[in-house]
Amino acid sequence: MNTTRIEGTVATGFESVRDEFAAFVTETDGQTGSQLAAYHHGRLVVDLWAGDGTGPDTLTGVHSVTKGATTLVTALLVQDGLVDLDLPVARYWPEFGRAGKAAITVRDVMSHRSGVIGIPGGFTVEELVDERLVADRLAAEAPLWRPGTAHGYAGFTVGALLNEVVRRTTGQTIQEVYAERVREPYDLDFHLGLPEELEPRYRDIRPWTATPEQEAAFAAYSPNPDGIAGIGYNLGERGFTPETVMTFPNARIVRATGPASAGGVASARGIAKLYAATIGEVDGRAPLLKPETLTEFTTIHSTGTNLVTGDGSPFALGFEAKGLIHPFLSARAFGHTGSAGADGIADPLHGIAIGYTRSLAAFAFDAPERGRFAAAIAGAAAGLGGEES
Amino acid sequence: MNTTRIEGTVATGFESVRDEFAAFVTETDGQTGSQLAAYHHGRLVVDLWAGDGTGPDTLTGVHSVTKGATTLVTALLVQDGLVDLDLPVARYWPEFGRAGKAAITVRDVMSHRSGVIGIPGGFTVEELVDERLVADRLAAEAPLWRPGTAHGYAGFTVGALLNEVVRRTTGQTIQEVYAERVREPYDLDFHLGLPEELEPRYRDIRPWTATPEQEAAFAAYSPNPDGIAGIGYNLGERGFTPETVMTFPNARIVRATGPASAGGVASARGIAKLYAATIGEVDGRAPLLKPETLTEFTTIHSTGTNLVTGDGSPFALGFEAKGLIHPFLSARAFGHTGSAGADGIADPLHGIAIGYTRSLAAFAFDAPERGRFAAAIAGAAAGLGGEES
Amino acid sequence: MNTTRIEGTVATGFESVRDEFAAFVTETDGQTGSQLAAYHHGRLVVDLWAGDGTGPDTLTGVHSVTKGATTLVTALLVQDGLVDLDLPVARYWPEFGRAGKAAITVRDVMSHRSGVIGIPGGFTVEELVDERLVADRLAAEAPLWRPGTAHGYAGFTVGALLNEVVRRTTGQTIQEVYAERVREPYDLDFHLGLPEELEPRYRDIRPWTATPEQEAAFAAYSPNPDGIAGIGYNLGERGFTPETVMTFPNARIVRATGPASAGGVASARGIAKLYAATIGEVDGRAPLLKPETLTEFTTIHSTGTNLVTGDGSPFALGFEAKGLIHPFLSARAFGHTGSAGADGIADPLHGIAIGYTRSLAAFAFDAPERGRFAAAIAGAAAGLGGEES
Repeated sequence: MNTTRIEGTVATGFESVRDEFAAFVTETDGQTGSQLAAYHHGRLVVDLWAGDGTGPDTLTGVHSVTKGATTLVTALLVQDGLVDLDLPVARYWPEFGRAGKAAITVRDVMSHRSGVIGIPGGFTVEELVDERLVADRLAAEAPLWRPGTAHGYAGFTVGALLNEVVRRTTGQTIQEVYAERVREPYDLDFHLGLPEELEPRYRDIRPWTATPEQEAAFAAYSPNPDGIAGIGYNLGERGFTPETVMTFPNARIVRATGPASAGGVASARGIAKLYAATIGEVDGRAPLLKPETLTEFTTIHSTGTNLVTGDGSPFALGFEAKGLIHPFLSARAFGHTGSAGADGIADPLHGIAIGYTRSLAAFAFDAPERGRFAAAIAGAAAGLGGEES
Repeated sequence: MNTTRIEGTVATGFESVRDEFAAFVTETDGQTGSQLAAYHHGRLVVDLWAGDGTGPDTLTGVHSVTKGATTLVTALLVQDGLVDLDLPVARYWPEFGRAGKAAITVRDVMSHRSGVIGIPGGFTVEELVDERLVADRLAAEAPLWRPGTAHGYAGFTVGALLNEVVRRTTGQTIQEVYAERVREPYDLDFHLGLPEELEPRYRDIRPWTATPEQEAAFAAYSPNPDGIAGIGYNLGERGFTPETVMTFPNARIVRATGPASAGGVASARGIAKLYAATIGEVDGRAPLLKPETLTEFTTIHSTGTNLVTGDGSPFALGFEAKGLIHPFLSARAFGHTGSAGADGIADPLHGIAIGYTRSLAAFAFDAPERGRFAAAIAGAAAGLGGEES
Repeated sequence: MNTTRIEGTVATGFESVRDEFAAFVTETDGQTGSQLAAYHHGRLVVDLWAGDGTGPDTLTGVHSVTKGATTLVTALLVQDGLVDLDLPVARYWPEFGRAGKAAITVRDVMSHRSGVIGIPGGFTVEELVDERLVADRLAAEAPLWRPGTAHGYAGFTVGALLNEVVRRTTGQTIQEVYAERVREPYDLDFHLGLPEELEPRYRDIRPWTATPEQEAAFAAYSPNPDGIAGIGYNLGERGFTPETVMTFPNARIVRATGPASAGGVASARGIAKLYAATIGEVDGRAPLLKPETLTEFTTIHSTGTNLVTGDGSPFALGFEAKGLIHPFLSARAFGHTGSAGADGIADPLHGIAIGYTRSLAAFAFDAPERGRFAAAIAGAAAGLGGEES
């Protein structure tokens, strides 16, 4: 057995998190190239990494963890009064109101209830990086289900829809607002658009390796590209295969532009710090979201069967409803996973913020270590007692 | 083993469909008396039948496949601007507005969300063929659930409700509009009201034969006539038993009148042609539904637990949401099954229309061959490649 | 084996109910201290009890069976036109309209759709008996989910919310209205506030005894106090543990005040008579609810996943939707269970009303004998035939 060295530090009281991380690294022979970071009440208390080629500053593709940043930007604009969640998208972007979409609100889009999740045949990578093109195409589509009556994860398109709302409202893109108001002030290693000079720190996502039996089992569940799930996952002749989903951020054009649905690049430290800054004071700055905004965006919006994922996959507003996914977290925990295995979590009731990355894609997009690490961090934080807010 | 002869033809590229049909006929010793037909882009490409007493022109009872014709008629009236889906039913039919039903819309009724699904004790066969009587009785009922908040399949009553709306709007019955605008122009072997002169072509539905163990298992799941499922299935002292559900269309009065919920009589060719004409050009005529109307009626309306069937049983508008039932079909596939085993399916993204009948009722109302045949047809159509729209 | 004597009587035709009760008592060695009572068309037809220390007049804590009485009081005020189900709670109680709760209706609260289910950390027993304090605290909370879009059982707080609406509307508490209009006229042994002089009849709820394996299995499912389920169950450092949930009514202050969510004390006779009086004539008095009101409150309101209980737990309005829980009951059956094992059920289509208590708490809050007894009673009533309404 390869004994991969665990590097980094944990604060007093978080030793059990290091143990859990070490156990995972040993089980996986150090192959995953993982980083794990966590803040507790604004203090970095977990900062671990392991695996050849993976350092604390390594950046990798985080897929839908990107939606955490995108949602945060939208929340800031809602907080500023520039975007009203309950107005129709067409109020900001008239072309979207076609084909039965006149009444779809910003809230419907953010809670994955719009029924607009993609197009049959899918978008190419070249198209996905041009979010205005994606938005234009989606504006012509009819919803697949009656807006507001059900939810289904719009994995590769929700960001383009929100980006068009933001552009029409502010004249800036989500990427621009994010850089100005979030990434730069906190010097976050979480990029929607990775500058050329940071390219040397990028580590490619490596496709999973699986036994023939695993691959056969996975293939049996591959959704039909023309079905609801296939459209939601952007499958199809122009869209993705499971392999090209994994390697999506490995294309320089994707990293350079950082599409708002799934084109972000980050380290675990960057993800954790973003969530820490969202819920509390970090670097001497006030929390990014005021209590009222935080409450709005952490309110559960979408439960029941998710028509795209086929399981529960509950959502708050833009964020995943982490408290329903991980019962050991509080009712207002939120965040967003990424398909290769990355994750971002905040639990505002306990002052916890977590970031996780791995550069080896998790088999079948399932990285159960995320739950183990979150449980260990929540348990360690609870053990500290009186600090809780 | 009885080796029943498979008759009929398939077009080049659809040989695998014949193989699947032959395999099923062999497995079932040719007892089912099945017909299978399919159109691809307006062309009859599958036309098969097998079993003693079953020819290409044999007509049999198709139960709820009838709802496909009923929904099509309603869609035509919506397309004409005569019926507004979002107006209360009571606008067209004031008596319906009693007992908490004033706000129930046509859309609620068509998507099985009205909460009006039958009456405790059930309707007799003689009552069911008098759809105005059924409508009158239902107008006095309170909804069983809060309209719009859930869905439950109104198997034997939805047609009577729609028929009353159509009658109040047009002065004609669904059966009359159907005959004039759909059945006659296309010379469809799919009748809502079978003329006396075609009676010789009718073949009775034969009740299933089951082992004592099967019957015991089935009986254990028989719903209470006074429960939600029992009311929805029209069970009860005046209503059906499983056997009388099966043989419902064997009563001449049922065939003669063709009640809009479940009283239709058809061949597989007739069903397939109806769906082909709905989505595309057939016999040199323009598609019955314009793209906008087709989109409206193929939009998913009702997901989650169906309070009557107890499982998902998802619905588009009037039609079953076939893309959620058969993941190999597209997100806009639609149609309707019948309880003895018949089926009708259209997949507008792929230009496919399917009809299926069997005169031996499927045990426990479950005819899994429908999924096999649809998969084979969809697979064969996909194999033809470039023709796809 | 301890052969505990079954006491009491059953009417002709209900002998099978006594058999079922006896079988249960034998299986459980008479440890549960159970009472079972049922009315059929206004007549007491089942009146059984068994177990050391348990007589026909024994009173014990019935936990959420209390909600049946609370809902009945609210229904009476709706029937009187004093409370409008579809008005915002804030219309009656302005302070409640804060923190995103302005649009929450009385109906949302009664159908467990408000998203207001408790507070992190929980309420102490001393707080729970002060329902105005509980209402004040909840008025400051934001909903945990978007009101109206999902349901989750507000086990220990729904009564305080309704009590504040009732107080603002009538100047009386639910307990006062209940005593005047329901308990006293029928001399019910079902108390929301047990007078000192009846204390000698009270028998403590005894915590369940379980094997270490059972306790370990149960502990594994204990919800996190800060999660949705934990908040809904009032867990947490100030709130309950499973043991203190069970023994809640053993505190004299709880029995003395009878909080409207779960503080009631009753005998099975009292519960059964309350439901009998709700649906039909009892003691020569007209039914408490008029047909229209009964229909409103027995209409199914909340299905799908209950965010607190994690399973279906369907609700009518205030009452559990018993017809979806027990398929042998009719579509309009209603009532409410209690966590230690008590139950109240009415089936208005069949004129049945049932009460059940046990003083030994059911392991893991699961008392499956309730379903067995209800099935036996419904079966016996059905066997009587022609009496059905």
